[in-house]
Amino acid sequence: MQELLPTEQAIFDKLKQNISDVYHHYGFLNIETPIIERSEVLLAKAGGDTEKQIYMVSKTAESSDSADQALRFDHTVPLARYVVEHNNDLAFPFQVTQINRNFRGERAQRGRFREFYQCDCDIIGRDKLPIAYDAKVIACIHDALKTFNLPEMKIRISNRKVLAGFLAAINATDKATEISSIIDHAEKIPLEKSRAALEELQLSSDQVEKIIAFMFTKGNYDEIEQKLTEIIGDITPVREGLDELKEVFSILNSIDGMSDIEIDFMIIRGLDYYTGTVYETFLKDYREIGSISSGGRYENLAGNFSDQKFPGVGGSIGLTRLFFVLNEQHLLNVETSAPIDYVVMPLSSDEYASAIKLANQLRSKGKQVDIDFDDRKLGNKFNRAAKIAKYAIVVGSDEAASGNYQAKDLATGETEALSL
Amino acid sequence: MQELLPTEQAIFDKLKQNISDVYHHYGFLNIETPIIERSEVLLAKAGGDTEKQIYMVSKTAESSDSADQALRFDHTVPLARYVVEHNNDLAFPFQVTQINRNFRGERAQRGRFREFYQCDCDIIGRDKLPIAYDAKVIACIHDALKTFNLPEMKIRISNRKVLAGFLAAINATDKATEISSIIDHAEKIPLEKSRAALEELQLSSDQVEKIIAFMFTKGNYDEIEQKLTEIIGDITPVREGLDELKEVFSILNSIDGMSDIEIDFMIIRGLDYYTGTVYETFLKDYREIGSISSGGRYENLAGNFSDQKFPGVGGSIGLTRLFFVLNEQHLLNVETSAPIDYVVMPLSSDEYASAIKLANQLRSKGKQVDIDFDDRKLGNKFNRAAKIAKYAIVVGSDEAASGNYQAKDLATGETEALSL
Repeated sequence: MQELLPTEQAIFDKLKQNISDVYHHYGFLNIETPIIERSEVLLAKAGGDTEKQIYMVSKTAESSDSADQALRFDHTVPLARYVVEHNNDLAFPFQVTQINRNFRGERAQRGRFREFYQCDCDIIGRDKLPIAYDAKVIACIHDALKTFNLPEMKIRISNRKVLAGFLAAINATDKATEISSIIDHAEKIPLEKSRAALEELQLSSDQVEKIIAFMFTKGNYDEIEQKLTEIIGDITPVREGLDELKEVFSILNSIDGMSDIEIDFMIIRGLDYYTGTVYETFLKDYREIGSISSGGRYENLAGNFSDQKFPGVGGSIGLTRLFFVLNEQHLLNVETSAPIDYVVMPLSSDEYASAIKLANQLRSKGKQVDIDFDDRKLGNKFNRAAKIAKYAIVVGSDEAASGNYQAKDLATGETEALSL
Repeated sequence: MQELLPTEQAIFDKLKQNISDVYHHYGFLNIETPIIERSEVLLAKAGGDTEKQIYMVSKTAESSDSADQALRFDHTVPLARYVVEHNNDLAFPFQVTQINRNFRGERAQRGRFREFYQCDCDIIGRDKLPIAYDAKVIACIHDALKTFNLPEMKIRISNRKVLAGFLAAINATDKATEISSIIDHAEKIPLEKSRAALEELQLSSDQVEKIIAFMFTKGNYDEIEQKLTEIIGDITPVREGLDELKEVFSILNSIDGMSDIEIDFMIIRGLDYYTGTVYETFLKDYREIGSISSGGRYENLAGNFSDQKFPGVGGSIGLTRLFFVLNEQHLLNVETSAPIDYVVMPLSSDEYASAIKLANQLRSKGKQVDIDFDDRKLGNKFNRAAKIAKYAIVVGSDEAASGNYQAKDLATGETEALSL
């Protein structure tokens, strides 16, 4: 688990606040679901590895509550339960954000934590949800990431319906799961290994070459439509997916200040529940970091809990991991000055009242002010102040009587006058 | 567990942000400790009921990590571990805030939740910590509560050293635990029951009457010193505690805008680890709510983990419970208008680009703006907008062409012009 010192924590908190501010400016409403959920709710959705990583919860002593409980592993499952439970009180499309901790008992790994913040935004419709919302989620997360002052970003988008249509066109739908997985991992291994993996699926060499051509298809909308036509001829099977891609791509491109966007069919997103748009964001010059945000469209958020249909689209920033990798790459370009503004130092208890008055006046101007009541030597107090603040103000009897103070800049040693 | 609808959540979040802002203005540094701790760390401190309420955590599958783990039940135990672990990197006195969730498997009860926010601030010294910090913590929490716009507050303070000195003076030190508990509960039961409980301890009737006189002692400093003298004659045994009380009381009284403060020996605070100042805050006209914040001085934060001495003073606002009771009493006097500012409604996809441009311009002015891409009837869109926003702006082809928009106030129906 990650645990930060106060100075690092202040940077982490700033990034989290920036994300939250942008999500709210886009009209997303914050909710908090409990960290503990009933196990059956969580296990209904978790499969394979995720199920093995769930933290179960139990009481030390018997209690009236005998239901099995566990810690949530993402925000999506609790959101599904929330939407079903409260749907009569929600305004659809329901634009919702959750910025909070989740838990997975993963094997210890650099940059992977068992307790981690995810900053999600989702838009949930009732019965249907126009495709323009997919662009909205991507644009919102992009703006949130822009507050990090990162190097140039690239957004790579694809659409699961295009993949499905393509596999139908080449008669490989029955091997969709295996092929998706191979494409999903293709970027991290040499091409020959991907080809060998495809060949192991008993596909014809024509199918294999078409899949390889497909997965290297990227560019703007017109380019990918042309390339797909070259690969499969009749593009009717991929028409619906292409129309969605086109709309998302063109809305995003119409936004001022948007980063480079590329359609890229290598983007799959492992999770089964994506059914349309999928996207990932990367730093162009730091591809080794991997995606810094991702998400997509799911046809039905709450299929496990309800007969009602709630289509949705969402995206997420995995802040704990992102903070770790950006820190490692020296890319935490947010304000890193001392976390508080002033330390006020009364020289004796006779000056406490004046020190408190001065501090409260500075606080009323929005400043962060500590008062050091310690009776150690002044030199020790300055050493402490330099670790936590920008300025120090000594309050002796003269200052208390006159109301004239000197604020000492703890970095430069310069002083400036302050008057009550 | 508490789960709020978005409108309530917005109020909760505002209160939490207000507390956080005030704590930071007082110079407290935020930290976040993991929600999952090793059981031995938690159990070393938890006693009695708390131990029974701990949530244990286990993995569904075996993992490399076999240590017993549990969910923290307060911020103090993780803070003790944090301070010991990172003490070389911290500047003492270490002023620290934790605003986060804790977990206790309590029996279900109105207004008691198993997952709850506590907003703590603590000041930790190394070896020693001047008593003026006790006043600082109380003042800080008081200012945080002032942001709630509550009815008149009253702060009741006492000091455990006075209690200990008093019990020594009447030769009842050997029954300190039982007597403390009786005083602690005296407010909620008739006097005769408290008297009977004291009599059951085999105390002399003189001792019983002195304890009753003691527990009803309250007032300003001079009053309580005089009353104590009347009860026990020689006040030497309570001198140290009285000096501390006097200093805390006089510092707090010197602060502009401070609420009514009273020394009140009925204040005990159940927790064993308080050793000096203890305090509780109440709403004068809503005593049935109980204390809305509390805290005190502890001689040694980390006695279980370390040979080093870390004296501290802290206070806490139990926000989840407080939100619940204030809501019930209609005392949530913070802004309760719609959570977002604008819903922008493009009439067709031709106006998407203009709608996005308008929304981004409003966002750049700090406004919270939703875009409704839904293709339902305009009336339905207005119904949704009225639930979540203050204004709606329709973007048709005329508006898109001219850049002149009308913002409709969803409460009054009035419109005002907006121009790009």
